[in-house]
Amino acid sequence: MTTPSFISIPSDSDFSIHNLPYGVFRPSPGAPPRVGVAIGDFVLDCSVLVEAGLLVVEEVQAAQPFRKPSLNAFMSLGRPVWQAVRQQLQELLAAETATLRDNEPVREAALHRLDQVEMLLPATIGDYTDFYSSREHATNVGTMFRGKDNALQPNWLHLPVGYHGRASSVVVSGIDIRRPCGQTKPGDDPPQYGPSRLLDIELEMGFFVGPGNRLGEPIPVADAEEHIFGLVLVNDWSARDIQKWEYVPLGPFLGKNFATTVSPWVVTLEALAPFRVPGPTQEPAPLPYLQHPHPGAFDIQLEVGLQTPEMDAPHPICRSNFKHLYWSMAQQLAHHTVSGCNMRSGDLLASGTISGPTEDSYGSLLELTWRGSKPIVLPTGETRTFLQDGDTVVMKGYAQGDGYRVGFGEARGRILPAPC
Amino acid sequence: MTTPSFISIPSDSDFSIHNLPYGVFRPSPGAPPRVGVAIGDFVLDCSVLVEAGLLVVEEVQAAQPFRKPSLNAFMSLGRPVWQAVRQQLQELLAAETATLRDNEPVREAALHRLDQVEMLLPATIGDYTDFYSSREHATNVGTMFRGKDNALQPNWLHLPVGYHGRASSVVVSGIDIRRPCGQTKPGDDPPQYGPSRLLDIELEMGFFVGPGNRLGEPIPVADAEEHIFGLVLVNDWSARDIQKWEYVPLGPFLGKNFATTVSPWVVTLEALAPFRVPGPTQEPAPLPYLQHPHPGAFDIQLEVGLQTPEMDAPHPICRSNFKHLYWSMAQQLAHHTVSGCNMRSGDLLASGTISGPTEDSYGSLLELTWRGSKPIVLPTGETRTFLQDGDTVVMKGYAQGDGYRVGFGEARGRILPAPC
Repeated sequence: MTTPSFISIPSDSDFSIHNLPYGVFRPSPGAPPRVGVAIGDFVLDCSVLVEAGLLVVEEVQAAQPFRKPSLNAFMSLGRPVWQAVRQQLQELLAAETATLRDNEPVREAALHRLDQVEMLLPATIGDYTDFYSSREHATNVGTMFRGKDNALQPNWLHLPVGYHGRASSVVVSGIDIRRPCGQTKPGDDPPQYGPSRLLDIELEMGFFVGPGNRLGEPIPVADAEEHIFGLVLVNDWSARDIQKWEYVPLGPFLGKNFATTVSPWVVTLEALAPFRVPGPTQEPAPLPYLQHPHPGAFDIQLEVGLQTPEMDAPHPICRSNFKHLYWSMAQQLAHHTVSGCNMRSGDLLASGTISGPTEDSYGSLLELTWRGSKPIVLPTGETRTFLQDGDTVVMKGYAQGDGYRVGFGEARGRILPAPC
Repeated sequence: MTTPSFISIPSDSDFSIHNLPYGVFRPSPGAPPRVGVAIGDFVLDCSVLVEAGLLVVEEVQAAQPFRKPSLNAFMSLGRPVWQAVRQQLQELLAAETATLRDNEPVREAALHRLDQVEMLLPATIGDYTDFYSSREHATNVGTMFRGKDNALQPNWLHLPVGYHGRASSVVVSGIDIRRPCGQTKPGDDPPQYGPSRLLDIELEMGFFVGPGNRLGEPIPVADAEEHIFGLVLVNDWSARDIQKWEYVPLGPFLGKNFATTVSPWVVTLEALAPFRVPGPTQEPAPLPYLQHPHPGAFDIQLEVGLQTPEMDAPHPICRSNFKHLYWSMAQQLAHHTVSGCNMRSGDLLASGTISGPTEDSYGSLLELTWRGSKPIVLPTGETRTFLQDGDTVVMKGYAQGDGYRVGFGEARGRILPAPC
């Protein structure tokens, strides 16, 4: 069942009236950034609606979060404000509401075609954390490197393993990715310097923190979702050869910090509510500080496409689903702050590679090609184990409603040659 | 040889006229933050000097970096501007210069007693990175956990191992530190939740990035020091029991992210220039991208004091030196960006624990007490293996000149009970 809007929205559009994801955009080159929501093939400038008096929420009047170059201010306002804004936007966009529909000057000023605006990074990310929450992914990688019997590390089923990533190099979809240079150690050869030869993707999703917490005051798992604003697609580009040589004992560093791509539209938890499903059974039961009664997973279909310079469109190489994740976002956030670690609005927490149970659902080339032993054959006859210069990777995702979608748009990046 | 100032400065003061470290302070509670330099027992408000026309540098007039709540703007201006400002400040403070000395209104407005101002975090830290650059520390820890023969991991002598830390929880000296809660696994028992019982320190120093680099454009090692603004003391508080259970395979996370303390005064590379010394011989020779011709170490004496609630003053438990570090700051920065990772002004890169060759120079309780097997005996007769609630840790450091010091003040923190 879908509520019609006066804006025509195809049923397979990511941006139905049930979605209304937030993003930061420039309507024209050099124009000041502002906050909008995606609707069909358009972006609706929220700042224009506020100025025209069509969108009236007290906290929004006070903070003016839509005339900002990031969503951080809006994220900090909390769920009651997010809900009030969402409700008014849905009313304004409804087919039967004349307020915006018949106000041509405001409609003209507020609506821009999506393909004519420049999308920016949605938030100023204070800290970026990456988890490792797919059991299938951890098992696959563990099997490759330690054998099947020792695939999962002893801590993995007891806590959501994660690490701190690099915030400065998180970029928005569409930014080209330069192949990293670095130090590797192939086999028994001495360490060498040069371009990474095992450039990979990781299919992930991430959530942005809404209101934060004070240092020393953990967020209880039962409250965690009140601190989650919304989700994006994340491609955690990975240089496997650099990572392999550097990561003992302190974890991934240069193998990951050269770039992380996120989709520009932040889909809110409100929009995703109809798609909540139980996650995998957790056995052994987590410690009480990680237990929440409500289902913590979301049914979001994910796809990775790969396009070489010889191809006209991306070819799907992976289909997975966000619901496969073992650890929920609420558990990740509760665990992250149990030490007293403070979150700030706009912090990004990513899931780790989302691999499913079948071989075509693995979220990295490392797994899809099983360390390069099973090359992917593309429609052009070309094969790939890892990425080559000029390759483009496109990640997409959506939740399927009854005749409508709540989708994420895409996280896209093309590989440029290394500078070394 | 020391240049006298019209401000009386004891020879053992950290803040000689040769130092002039930068910090951010409030002259009175609630007053807007501004940038000053420490001189003797005073802080000199640079913003007042600019307004009064006593400090005249074109880029400073344009950017007004001293009327800011952080040093980031000043850090971004680069070495020629830093040098011009330093030179003018040294002239203004010299005994024979009447300009400031005899201008009572400006002098009164610009000079505040250090013990009457509130010091703030010196920079807005976009990303915080922690290295692991002391060979002695890595060897000690490796010996404890893997035995003497496998102490250093295979990569350690080839690259400066590091990882991404948590920027949000970096706090300035004086902020109390709450003992973290978390998950630990003592021996063969099942995992449990509770306060960390093995709360430790790490004696480190860190440097702040000046001008950054663009994503995809590494900073060559020969240029690296042009991107280094100055140094602070760093206490990388560590919960060893949390760290031990969580850190495989992605590195330290909650065991570190509950707090990191830095000293408020940033000592510039200019001030430290006379104390440059060759670092340890690097054998095997690093790859060319990590080689620099100039000596990359600095002779900075470091001390850690521990004060229990029963004591009147901190008791020294460690004396070490920054010059022991195997990997230089220039090497750390070149390595960090070799992947194309972008630095932003104000990013913090810490050294890792600075342990020296002797047992009294180890920079952590883990090493000083050898995993708790050799408790430290304090003058009160109390003993410590790891920190107890109410304990205060004070880190200090200075370079000793001929009759003057270039010092860092202190990085101080007191342990509060856990919230669980």
